[in-house]
Amino acid sequence: MKGQPVQYRYVTHLKWIGEKKGIISSEGKPDINVACPPEFGGHEKIWSPEDLFVSSVEVCTMTTFLWFVQKERIRLKSYTSTAEGVAELVGKNFQFSTIHIWLKIEISSEQDRKRVASIIERIPRFCLISASITTEVEIHSEIVLT
Amino acid sequence: MKGQPVQYRYVTHLKWIGEKKGIISSEGKPDINVACPPEFGGHEKIWSPEDLFVSSVEVCTMTTFLWFVQKERIRLKSYTSTAEGVAELVGKNFQFSTIHIWLKIEISSEQDRKRVASIIERIPRFCLISASITTEVEIHSEIVLT
Repeated sequence: MKGQPVQYRYVTHLKWIGEKKGIISSEGKPDINVACPPEFGGHEKIWSPEDLFVSSVEVCTMTTFLWFVQKERIRLKSYTSTAEGVAELVGKNFQFSTIHIWLKIEISSEQDRKRVASIIERIPRFCLISASITTEVEIHSEIVLT
Repeated sequence: MKGQPVQYRYVTHLKWIGEKKGIISSEGKPDINVACPPEFGGHEKIWSPEDLFVSSVEVCTMTTFLWFVQKERIRLKSYTSTAEGVAELVGKNFQFSTIHIWLKIEISSEQDRKRVASIIERIPRFCLISASITTEVEIHSEIVLT
């Protein structure tokens, strides 16, 4: 409807299953086991809220990138990334100060290199998650011609 | 070491697998399939960055709650929650404006009700993720004696 604010809603559910563990669910999607991480008295080898937060930024960076790649008809050969979130004490409490994301992108045409680099610069402004956090997001990229 | 800032680091990896889909991984943890959600030209029934963001806040709310429950030796019978993140257009871009979290907590002693309510009030200040985002987190709770 004209004039109505555009809004999207994302719903998830959580159930505590004992100790510092739980299961998250979202309609139609596979359940994910989650837990408090070891450094805060929790468990190893289970996705923590900190991991989910860092990966939400990492995945949004990719989906934003892919949106522009499709729009500009760039032929992408591969895209991988590693993200590292740094949580630091600010006063008495922890906060995520920085998330570094290292991208490795393979393209097949030298002509696409500048366009890909230009897209990467635009990501932080357009990524919905980056726009909702105080954490600084630093993107480091390597664009390889293969 | 004395005087050294306390810092924790969280590392995740992402691999694009075609279309608007990818797989996230973190050492020793099960892989998770992820995708751009349908409303932004992606896929249904796969965890999106938006889902991961909302659930990171939802899970951190639980782990923060459990930390205080353990410290104050409260006997918790059950804990479940539903979270809803609202993404809205701010200027030309989307941002998460609010995340509502509805908690349902079962306890077995009426004496614990006030202590549990007091813990819930403290969560937003102590949750690492809530402290790292501009999104308003609104916690609604129902404490039931069973």
